[in-house]
Amino acid sequence: MIATDLTSQLTDTQAASWASYQRMRARLGGRLGRELARDAGVSDADYEILWALLEAPGDSVRALALRCGLEWEKSRLSHQLRRMEERGLVIRRDCSVDNRGTDVSITEAGRSLAVQARAYHDEAVRRYVVDALTPEQLLQLEAISEAIVHGLDQPRDTQ
Amino acid sequence: MIATDLTSQLTDTQAASWASYQRMRARLGGRLGRELARDAGVSDADYEILWALLEAPGDSVRALALRCGLEWEKSRLSHQLRRMEERGLVIRRDCSVDNRGTDVSITEAGRSLAVQARAYHDEAVRRYVVDALTPEQLLQLEAISEAIVHGLDQPRDTQ
Repeated sequence: MIATDLTSQLTDTQAASWASYQRMRARLGGRLGRELARDAGVSDADYEILWALLEAPGDSVRALALRCGLEWEKSRLSHQLRRMEERGLVIRRDCSVDNRGTDVSITEAGRSLAVQARAYHDEAVRRYVVDALTPEQLLQLEAISEAIVHGLDQPRDTQ
Repeated sequence: MIATDLTSQLTDTQAASWASYQRMRARLGGRLGRELARDAGVSDADYEILWALLEAPGDSVRALALRCGLEWEKSRLSHQLRRMEERGLVIRRDCSVDNRGTDVSITEAGRSLAVQARAYHDEAVRRYVVDALTPEQLLQLEAISEAIVHGLDQPRDTQ
């Protein structure tokens, strides 16, 4: 909360690395999103949900677990799931274990769309990421990603 | 466009690296976005535009250049700039060189908000990225990002 403390800002080297990552993230995300919409008719948000549901063990996922995994606001997830339910891609059910949660499951139509979208997505990832990096860089990216996620999992005072 | 060609899909190792990156990107983006909204009252989209305008050489930027840098759809950028203009953060002007473009410039209020948001943002980047990685990993992330952006810059048949 003391973000105006100038001693905690980034060095030039750190800022340059971060700027480079931000540029890549924005451009790669934009490119993948546009191609996915064009080729598979699926938005980024649709794809993130479908992908999380495909990856989940079992037939359904608690909405809260989806929220935590995606770090979305409750209202955003709620709107997104309602729209996807209207399109027949997911089903929401009140949770059987207690009365405070919602289970989300993927329909056959959702699964079919997810598999198709994933084929387009993987092809684009091969083209724009795998082909652009050495195998060693791809493993570095994995280790970097895991270190950042591990840090995000730590409890903090400021959250 | 031949995304259903199974020979072009990812290996397990490549898919694991990509999944790890996707998880990090989604969670880090969500965390930074929520904290930026909470602490600085700025959305991700606001921040991307303000940041691009702060970084740009000169006082104004062609809307087309903004679009290309962010890889946003024209309609998305247009909506976003209109909302930011209504809030007094940016000004749009018909381009003086020809009649086909729009120049976008940042106002004093926009600049002030951008500087403040950036302080919060940099503090969060230090906490969640710089502190989570070794200095070597931060440089690896920069090299990886540059290689991907370089690939995105190449002309392709399929675009």
